[in-house]
Amino acid sequence: MIIIMKDGASKQEITAVEEKLTQFGFQTHPIYGETKTVIGAIGDKRQISMNEVLLMSGVENIVPIMRPYKLASKELKQERSTVDVGHGVIVGGDKLAVFAGPCAIESEEQFIKVAKLVKESGANILRGGAFKPRTSPYAFGGLEEEGLRIMRKAGDMLGMPICTEVMDTRDALLVAKYADVIQIGARNMQNFKLLREVGRVGKPVLLKRGLASTIEEWLMAAEYIMSEGDSDVILCERGIRTYETSTRNTFDVSAIPVTQELTHLPIIGDPSHASGTYKYVPALAKAAVAAGADGLMIEVHDCPECASSDGPQSLKPEKFDMLMKELKGIASAVGKEL
Amino acid sequence: MIIIMKDGASKQEITAVEEKLTQFGFQTHPIYGETKTVIGAIGDKRQISMNEVLLMSGVENIVPIMRPYKLASKELKQERSTVDVGHGVIVGGDKLAVFAGPCAIESEEQFIKVAKLVKESGANILRGGAFKPRTSPYAFGGLEEEGLRIMRKAGDMLGMPICTEVMDTRDALLVAKYADVIQIGARNMQNFKLLREVGRVGKPVLLKRGLASTIEEWLMAAEYIMSEGDSDVILCERGIRTYETSTRNTFDVSAIPVTQELTHLPIIGDPSHASGTYKYVPALAKAAVAAGADGLMIEVHDCPECASSDGPQSLKPEKFDMLMKELKGIASAVGKEL
Amino acid sequence: MIIIMKDGASKQEITAVEEKLTQFGFQTHPIYGETKTVIGAIGDKRQISMNEVLLMSGVENIVPIMRPYKLASKELKQERSTVDVGHGVIVGGDKLAVFAGPCAIESEEQFIKVAKLVKESGANILRGGAFKPRTSPYAFGGLEEEGLRIMRKAGDMLGMPICTEVMDTRDALLVAKYADVIQIGARNMQNFKLLREVGRVGKPVLLKRGLASTIEEWLMAAEYIMSEGDSDVILCERGIRTYETSTRNTFDVSAIPVTQELTHLPIIGDPSHASGTYKYVPALAKAAVAAGADGLMIEVHDCPECASSDGPQSLKPEKFDMLMKELKGIASAVGKEL
Amino acid sequence: MIIIMKDGASKQEITAVEEKLTQFGFQTHPIYGETKTVIGAIGDKRQISMNEVLLMSGVENIVPIMRPYKLASKELKQERSTVDVGHGVIVGGDKLAVFAGPCAIESEEQFIKVAKLVKESGANILRGGAFKPRTSPYAFGGLEEEGLRIMRKAGDMLGMPICTEVMDTRDALLVAKYADVIQIGARNMQNFKLLREVGRVGKPVLLKRGLASTIEEWLMAAEYIMSEGDSDVILCERGIRTYETSTRNTFDVSAIPVTQELTHLPIIGDPSHASGTYKYVPALAKAAVAAGADGLMIEVHDCPECASSDGPQSLKPEKFDMLMKELKGIASAVGKEL
Repeated sequence: MIIIMKDGASKQEITAVEEKLTQFGFQTHPIYGETKTVIGAIGDKRQISMNEVLLMSGVENIVPIMRPYKLASKELKQERSTVDVGHGVIVGGDKLAVFAGPCAIESEEQFIKVAKLVKESGANILRGGAFKPRTSPYAFGGLEEEGLRIMRKAGDMLGMPICTEVMDTRDALLVAKYADVIQIGARNMQNFKLLREVGRVGKPVLLKRGLASTIEEWLMAAEYIMSEGDSDVILCERGIRTYETSTRNTFDVSAIPVTQELTHLPIIGDPSHASGTYKYVPALAKAAVAAGADGLMIEVHDCPECASSDGPQSLKPEKFDMLMKELKGIASAVGKEL
Repeated sequence: MIIIMKDGASKQEITAVEEKLTQFGFQTHPIYGETKTVIGAIGDKRQISMNEVLLMSGVENIVPIMRPYKLASKELKQERSTVDVGHGVIVGGDKLAVFAGPCAIESEEQFIKVAKLVKESGANILRGGAFKPRTSPYAFGGLEEEGLRIMRKAGDMLGMPICTEVMDTRDALLVAKYADVIQIGARNMQNFKLLREVGRVGKPVLLKRGLASTIEEWLMAAEYIMSEGDSDVILCERGIRTYETSTRNTFDVSAIPVTQELTHLPIIGDPSHASGTYKYVPALAKAAVAAGADGLMIEVHDCPECASSDGPQSLKPEKFDMLMKELKGIASAVGKEL
Repeated sequence: MIIIMKDGASKQEITAVEEKLTQFGFQTHPIYGETKTVIGAIGDKRQISMNEVLLMSGVENIVPIMRPYKLASKELKQERSTVDVGHGVIVGGDKLAVFAGPCAIESEEQFIKVAKLVKESGANILRGGAFKPRTSPYAFGGLEEEGLRIMRKAGDMLGMPICTEVMDTRDALLVAKYADVIQIGARNMQNFKLLREVGRVGKPVLLKRGLASTIEEWLMAAEYIMSEGDSDVILCERGIRTYETSTRNTFDVSAIPVTQELTHLPIIGDPSHASGTYKYVPALAKAAVAAGADGLMIEVHDCPECASSDGPQSLKPEKFDMLMKELKGIASAVGKEL
Repeated sequence: MIIIMKDGASKQEITAVEEKLTQFGFQTHPIYGETKTVIGAIGDKRQISMNEVLLMSGVENIVPIMRPYKLASKELKQERSTVDVGHGVIVGGDKLAVFAGPCAIESEEQFIKVAKLVKESGANILRGGAFKPRTSPYAFGGLEEEGLRIMRKAGDMLGMPICTEVMDTRDALLVAKYADVIQIGARNMQNFKLLREVGRVGKPVLLKRGLASTIEEWLMAAEYIMSEGDSDVILCERGIRTYETSTRNTFDVSAIPVTQELTHLPIIGDPSHASGTYKYVPALAKAAVAAGADGLMIEVHDCPECASSDGPQSLKPEKFDMLMKELKGIASAVGKEL
C-alpha cells in the first residue's frame, strides 16, 4: 500500500501517518520528493479499512497494491480450475461446456422436446428458468418447484446435468435439491446474502456478471461464495450496460482473457442475454469461443414466438444445430473440443 | 403500439400480423407508405409479451406507446404523493425531509450521540445501517438486530422516525418491526423477491436507484412494491455508474425533474453515496435541493476516520450543521422549508 | 414517422398537427385509441427537422421509422461493398485485410524493419502514424510529412498499400498525396469539417468508431464522407468507453454483426487500441475474425519498450507472427482466407 | 511515480528497473515487501513516456503520483482565475456569467430580437452558432461568416461580448476577428490541432467537455490551449454520455466541485445541451448555480418550433426571464450575484 501525501504536507503529518501505520502492523518507508512525499507500507491488510489513514491530515490518496480477493485469485492458485458438474461433464477443461435450453420452463412436454434437440446438437448441460427475474411485476415469473421437477426429470432421462437460477435465500435449499449447477443471475450478483447462502449448499455455482459490475466486483462476488467453502464457481459473461442501444447489452468479450489473467476460475459466455436478439447470437458465440471461453450458455426454444420470456433472443433448434457445427472449427482452431 | 414492418413486407405478412393482433383483442390500423408499412394497434396490453408478433415474418420492430408502469405513473395520479413516515414527518410536501446519520450503527452510544447532533442541526429522520451490503466478504456486515434495537431506541428518545436497509427476504418482518421506513439499497433494486416481500409488510419504503438502472427500471421496481398494495414509496437518487472516476458515481441530478414528470412519488437525493467523498457532498446536496428534490439523505459521523464503513463520504457533525444552514437559503429560493 | 399525442390531446390539437404535416408534404393517418391518439405520417423527410411538430401543443413524442443515413444503408444497397485499396488488396471480400505496423513512425530504418516483418507474417496493408493525436500537449506528435514519405517509400518497396491518419483539414491533401487509405481517428469521428474534406480527396477512408459513438452516429459519419462522393469507406471498431477499467476501452465485438445488418460497408477490428495492452490483443483479434470482421488493424513494434507512443499495446513481431498462424484456423472456420 | 513489481520479481529485474530509472534522472527507493517489491521514483517527468519501464521484465504496473497537467492545475496556481471577456464582463468572480441566445443564428432580425430579450432578462454574454456541428450531413450547417457578422453587430449594439464556436483550424482567425469568446464544442474537445490553433489567437476560450471525456482529459485539453500561451480558458460542463436515455446526456453536476478542487479555471454549466429538452433546463440551471458554477450557458429562442437547430431544448424568452428571476435567490444563497 502506498500513501500519497498532499503537496506541502508537514513533517508532523507525515510522522503521524507513519505512527498510525506502525500501530496497524505495517512497516513504513517514506520517500521524500521535491513537492510530494509518499509512504510505502508493507503488510497484507486486505480486510482492514484504510479510512482512518485516508482521512488523516495531509493525506491525499492511498494506492492499494494487493488485489482485494484471495481465494479467487491467481496469486493463490496458478493452474486453471475445473468444475465437475456431474454426469461426466467438466467445465474448464479441453471440452467446451454448452449450457442450452429455453429461457423459462413452460411445460414438461416443451422442455423435454427442446432438451432432446439440444442434446442431439451437442449441448452437454441443460439450462432453464423455474424462478424468473422479470422487470415487470405483471410478467410470468416461472413455474417454481414444478419447473425444477421437470428439469430434473429431463436431466435424468437424458443423462445431462441441469442448471437453473435461484433468486431468494429462502429457495436455495430447494433449488439445490434439484439442480446440478445453481445460477446466480446478473441482477443478484451483489445480493450478498444470497451469495453466502448458495456458497453453503455445496453445489457448483454459475455466477453471472452483474449488468454494470466491474471484473473486480465480479471476482469479489465469487470470493463471497468461495469464502463459505464452495470453490466450484463458474463465471459467466453476459453483457454489460453501456450507452450503445443497438444490442440490449454490450458483450464484453475482453472479460474472457482478463479473467483468465486474474483468476483460476473457468469462464463461459452468454451471447443470448448480451445481444437480446437471436440474430447476433451466432457471431457472439463464435467470438467467445475464439477468445478462449470455456463454454457457452445459449437460449434455444422450438417456438420463440410463443416463448413466455425472452423469445426474441432464443435460437430455434435448427439454428442452434447449425451454430454448433460452425463452432467446431473455431473450437478446434483454439485447441478445444466441442 | 406500433408495429413497423420490414421494407417490402408482403401483403400476406401484413395480413397475418393484423390477424394475430385481432386475436389478442387489438384494433388494427395499417398505414401503407412508399417503402414501409406500419400497423397501429389499439388496446392496453402492458402485461402481454409481444414476442409472438415481434418474431412474425416481415416484422421489423414494435414501438410501445404506453409506459410499462401504471400505479407509479402520473397517468394514474396527477397530483404529487406524500408519504407519512411517522412522528409528524411527511415526505413530499413543502418541508424538506432530511435523513441523516452514520453509514453503519456501531454502538448505542455512538449512534445516539450522532442522532442528537443531526437532530439539533435540523435533520428530521434518522438513518443508519444494521444490515450492510459490503463488496468484500471480509468487511463488517453490521450489528443486525442489535443495530435495529439501537436505532429504535434513539428514534423513540428523540421523537424521530428511523430508516434502515433490509437485504434479505427473511429479514423483512424483523426490519419492519423496528423501522419506520424500510430502505431497499441500490444493489437490491431489482431483487424482485425482496421488493414483493417489502411491499407486503405495509411500511413506507425508501427505494434507492440501482447503480446502473434506468429511470424506467426504477419506476418498475416501485411498481413491484406498489403492486403488493404498498403505495408509500419514496425514490432516492444516489448516483449512477459512468466512465468518470473522479467521483465514485455520477449524481444524476436530472433524475429529479425527470421523475417528477413521470411519477407522483416523492424523490430525495443522496449526495454521500454518489460522490464517495465528503468534499463534494455540500455542493451536490445544494444542487439536489435547487433542482427540486423533496429531501436529502446524508451520512454524518462524529469520527469519520474511525467509521467501520464509508467513513470517507461522511460529514462531521459540524460540517453537516453548516451545510444545513446554507441549504436554508436554497430551499427558500425554491419555495421549500428546511 | 409516428407522432404520439399526449393523453387527452384535444381534437383541435390533433387537427393542427395533421395540418402542419400536410403542409410538409406528408400524408397523415390518425389512429384514435382509448387514452391516446397517434398519427402516422407517410413521406421521406430525413433532412427536415421535426422540431416544429415536436413542440406543437398536445404532442408527446415523435418516433422515426426510417434510418437517418441513406448512402451507407442496406436499404440502398443490399450486397456488401468491397474497397480496393491498391496493390491488389481488396477490403471486404473473402481474404482478410490485415493492417499492421507501429503506432508512430519513428525513423525510416525502424519502419522498414517492422514493415518487412509484418509482411512476412502475412499482413497486407501497412499502418503507421505520421500525425499523432496525443492526450498531452507535451507528448511526441509524429514526424508529419517526413513520416508520410517514409511510409510511402516502405509501401512502394514492399508492394503494399499504406494507411495513415489525418487530423487537420489543412493536411488532407498532403496525406492523400502519400497514403492509399486515409484514416479518421476515433477522436475525429465527429469532426465534420474533416469528414467532408477527406470525402473530397477521393481516396479510401478508414473510419474509426468514436470512443463513445453509437453505431448510428458512426454510420452518419460515414454518410458525411459518402455524401461528398467517396463511397470507399471502411469501418473500424476500436473499443468504446464504458465503466470497466481492466481494459482501456471495451471492444464492442457486437458492432461487427450489427453493422453488417445495417450497412453494406466493410468492417475491421482494432484490438490494440481497444485493449490498451498487448496481452489481450490475440484473444480480441481472434474474436473479431470469428465474429465475421473483414480484417484487423494491429500495432506491431520491434521494441515496444522504446516506442514513442502506445508501446504497451504493441505486439512484438514474433508474437504477431504466432497470432497470424493461429488466426488461419479461425478464418477458415468462418469461410475466410488469411 | 511508483513502480509495482510482479510477485516474485527477481533481484536482477529490480536492479535493471532501478538502473533505467536512474538513467532517466530519477532517484529510486525500493521497498521490499513479503510478496511484492515496489520502487518509488522521485522526479517530475510528466512528458516522458514510461513505456520503456512498464514493459521491462518483472514490472507489473506504474502508478503516477503527479497529475499530467501543469498550467491548468491548482498546484501551479491556488487562487481561482477570472477571465475578462470584454465589455466589462468577468467570468469567474462573484457575478454569474450568463451566456444566452439561440443555438444557430438564422437571420439578423431574429438574432437581434432574441439578444435584446436575453439582455433585458439579465444575460451578460450573447451566444449563437455560425458554424454548426450537425450529426447529419443533410442538416443546416450555419450561416458561417454572415452569422459572425450578425453576432458582432448585435454585440456592439447591445454592449455585450459574444461567444461562438469554431470547428475548423482554417476558420480560427476568422472567428477570432469577430468573437470575444471562442467556443470549442464537445465533439472537438480532443481535436488537438484546433486546440493549438485557438490557443494561438489570443482570445478567451470556452472549452466544452467532450461527450465522454473524463475530467482529467478535459483539463489536458485546457492544457493544450494554455501551452500555446492562452491562459483565458473557461470550462463548460454540458452533460456526458451514459446509459440513461430519459435525458439526451447526463448533466454531471459533480464536475463543478471536482474541477474547483483540481484547477483554478472558472467553470459554467450548460443545461440545454445536457437535457436536450427545455422542460428540464430550469432544474438543471438551478442545480448548477447551487453547486457553485461561475455561470450558465442557456439556449433561448423566440420560436423554438421554427428553430433550424436544437429547438426542443431552447427556452422561450418568457421562460428564460422567469428562470433568471428564480436563479437570483439561489445565487444569493451561495454568495453570488446575478
